[in-house]
Amino acid sequence: MPADRGQAGPPTISEVAAEAGVGRATAARTLGGYGYVSPELRERVLAAAEKLGYRANALARSMSTGVSHTLGVIVADIANPFFAGVVRGISDTSRARGFDTIVLSTYEDLDEEVAATNVLIDKRVDGVIIASAAVDRREVAHIKGATDRGIPVVLVDRAVASLDLDTVVIDNRDAARGAVETLIAAGHRRIGFVWGPPMPESPATRRGLLAEASRNLWTDGERLRGYLDALDDARIPFDPELVMVGRKTEERVTEDVARMLALPDRMTALFCTETDGVTGSLRALRAAGLSYPRDVALIGFDDSAWAAVMEPPLTMIEQPVHQLGAKAAQVLLDTLEGAGPARETHVLRSRLIVRSSVAPPPRS
Amino acid sequence: MPADRGQAGPPTISEVAAEAGVGRATAARTLGGYGYVSPELRERVLAAAEKLGYRANALARSMSTGVSHTLGVIVADIANPFFAGVVRGISDTSRARGFDTIVLSTYEDLDEEVAATNVLIDKRVDGVIIASAAVDRREVAHIKGATDRGIPVVLVDRAVASLDLDTVVIDNRDAARGAVETLIAAGHRRIGFVWGPPMPESPATRRGLLAEASRNLWTDGERLRGYLDALDDARIPFDPELVMVGRKTEERVTEDVARMLALPDRMTALFCTETDGVTGSLRALRAAGLSYPRDVALIGFDDSAWAAVMEPPLTMIEQPVHQLGAKAAQVLLDTLEGAGPARETHVLRSRLIVRSSVAPPPRS
Repeated sequence: MPADRGQAGPPTISEVAAEAGVGRATAARTLGGYGYVSPELRERVLAAAEKLGYRANALARSMSTGVSHTLGVIVADIANPFFAGVVRGISDTSRARGFDTIVLSTYEDLDEEVAATNVLIDKRVDGVIIASAAVDRREVAHIKGATDRGIPVVLVDRAVASLDLDTVVIDNRDAARGAVETLIAAGHRRIGFVWGPPMPESPATRRGLLAEASRNLWTDGERLRGYLDALDDARIPFDPELVMVGRKTEERVTEDVARMLALPDRMTALFCTETDGVTGSLRALRAAGLSYPRDVALIGFDDSAWAAVMEPPLTMIEQPVHQLGAKAAQVLLDTLEGAGPARETHVLRSRLIVRSSVAPPPRS
Repeated sequence: MPADRGQAGPPTISEVAAEAGVGRATAARTLGGYGYVSPELRERVLAAAEKLGYRANALARSMSTGVSHTLGVIVADIANPFFAGVVRGISDTSRARGFDTIVLSTYEDLDEEVAATNVLIDKRVDGVIIASAAVDRREVAHIKGATDRGIPVVLVDRAVASLDLDTVVIDNRDAARGAVETLIAAGHRRIGFVWGPPMPESPATRRGLLAEASRNLWTDGERLRGYLDALDDARIPFDPELVMVGRKTEERVTEDVARMLALPDRMTALFCTETDGVTGSLRALRAAGLSYPRDVALIGFDDSAWAAVMEPPLTMIEQPVHQLGAKAAQVLLDTLEGAGPARETHVLRSRLIVRSSVAPPPRS
C-alpha cells in the first residue's frame, strides 16, 4: 500500500530514490529497466517503489529486464596508439569485472560523437567512457542526454569545463613544462613548439594563442600552458614564429618545421605535442640536412617502441595509457555498482623517458 | 488467402524466401524482425509471407521493428595499427552508407571472441566483420551461431578454412615471397625469418614447421609458405635455426635474433612478419654492435611513419589496410542490401616500399 506522501500526484523517480537511499540515477536505471544495478540496490529501489506506489508497468519492466553488462567507449581516433592503449586498459579492467566493452571512434568529428552516443544509448550500454571533442557548453547536449537517462558517463583524456563528471586525465601541463625545462636546462633558448589545434593562422601574440586554445581541446590548451610556463620561469621571451598551429598532419608538420628552420635566428630545439609532430619534424630535419641532437634537440609525445630504436634513440614523454583506461573503467564500474558518481578529476602522472635526442645547442 | 502449397504444415522461411525470390537470410531477417533489409526486399518478403500464410505474429513483429543500421567488428587487437587501419576503412565505408560501427577487441583470445560475438548478437547488429582467431572447425560455432540467426558475417585479414563465407584478405604468401626474393636478389642466402605462431619449440624440419603452421593463423601459414617458396626457387637450403617461433613480443624477438646472430654461419639478412619483429630485431642488432644494411639487411611487415624516418629508412611491406576494411564493409553492406552472400575470397595487393635497409651481404 502506498505510504503517505503528504502531497497528491504520482511519485517521482527522485522520491523513490530518496526512499530507497540511493542516487537518482540508480533508481532511474532500476525503474527504467536499463543499465546495470547491483542486486542489493535493485532490491531496495523496487521495495521503495512498491511502498510509494510507483507506477506498475515500469516496475514490471524493470523486473523482466536483464543486465546488459556492457560498457560503451567513444574515442577520438582508435588509430592513434594512445587511444588504443586506453581502450586496452578499459577492456582489461571491465573484463575482469564481468563487463564487455564496445568501442566507437569519431575521428575528431563532433557529429560522429553525437551519433556514437546515440548508438550506445540505443544499444543499452550500462555506462559510457568518452574522450570527447566537445569544448563549448553548446556541444555537450548528447553527453547530458546519456546522463539524464541514468547512464553514467566518465570523461577520459580530456576534461570538459561545462560538464561536472568523473574525469580521468594526465598532467598535460606538467608534462609539457617538464619537457621544455629539460631543453632549457641543456642550454636551449630558441625552442620550437609543434602544436596542433586547427586555426586559420598562428595568432601573433601570446594572449591570442591562449584565447585560441580555450576554443580547442583541453589537452592542447594544457600543453601550451606548460610550454609557456617553462619559458616564463627561464625568462625566455615568447616568439610566435616558433609555434606551429593548424591541423597536425605529418605533411603539414614537415612544411612548418622547414619554415621554422629557415628563420634567421634559428631554433636549436623542438618540442612536439603529438607523434605525427615527431615524425614530421624528423623529415624536415633530414630534408634540411640537419641531424639531432647535434643541430636540433628533440622531445615529443608519445613514447613508442619505434622511438626507442631510432638512432640515436628519442627522449619522449610516456603517458600512462593503460592506467588511464583502467582508472576510467574502475570509476565507472564503481558508480554502476552503487558507489554513485564522485565527480572527481583524477590526474595520472606521465614520465619523461630520457634517451639521447637532447644535447646542448651547437656553438655558432 | 494462402496459396496452394501442395503439402500440409505451416510454411517455412525458406519457402517464403523462394516465393519472394530473395535469399533465406533476407527472409529470416525480415520475418524475424532483426537486421537490415532494404525497403523493396522487405516488401517482397512480406507479400510472399502473406500469400503463403506465414504465421502472423512473426509478421507483426517484423513490421514493428526498426532497422538497427549498425555493423559489429571483432578484431584480434585494436592496439595493432594494422587493425586500427582496417577499422577506419570499415567505419568510413559504412558511415557513407548510413551505418554505425561498433568494435570489440579480443586480444587474440578465442573465449573473448566468442563473448564478443554474443555481445554483437545481443546488441542486434545487422552484420559482423571479424578477424577471427579460429583455425579449427571445432572453433567456429560462435560464427555459425551468428549466420544461423540470419546475421551475415564477413571474414577479414584471416581466412578460416572450415567457414564458407565472404572473405577479404591480402596476398600474404606473395608479399612474403616478394620480400625474401628482394633479399636473395641482393645476394643473401642466410636469411633469418622472424615469425610468430606460439609453439613450444621450433620444429626441426620443414615438414614439422608446416604442420605447426596449419594449427595456427592462416596469415602465419601463408607468410611461412612465401618464405619457403622464395628459398626453394633460389635453391637455398632451409635451415630451421634461422626461424624464430614463439609468441612474438619485442623482448622475445630481441633474445631470439641475438641467438641467430651468434650462429657460426651468421645470417646476413632478416625478414620479419610483424612490426614487433622489426623493432625487436633492431634492438638485437644494436646490442650486438651491428648495423643495417651494412651487416644485416632487413625487410618487415608493416610500413609506418616511423619506418620512413629511421636512419637509414626501412624497406617495408605496406598492406592496404584501409582498403581491406572498406572492401569488407562493402561486401557486407551489399549482402545486407539484398545482394546475398557471394562466399567469395577477395585478395588485395600489398606493396613493397623500397627504401634503404637492403644492401648486399658483407664480404667476409
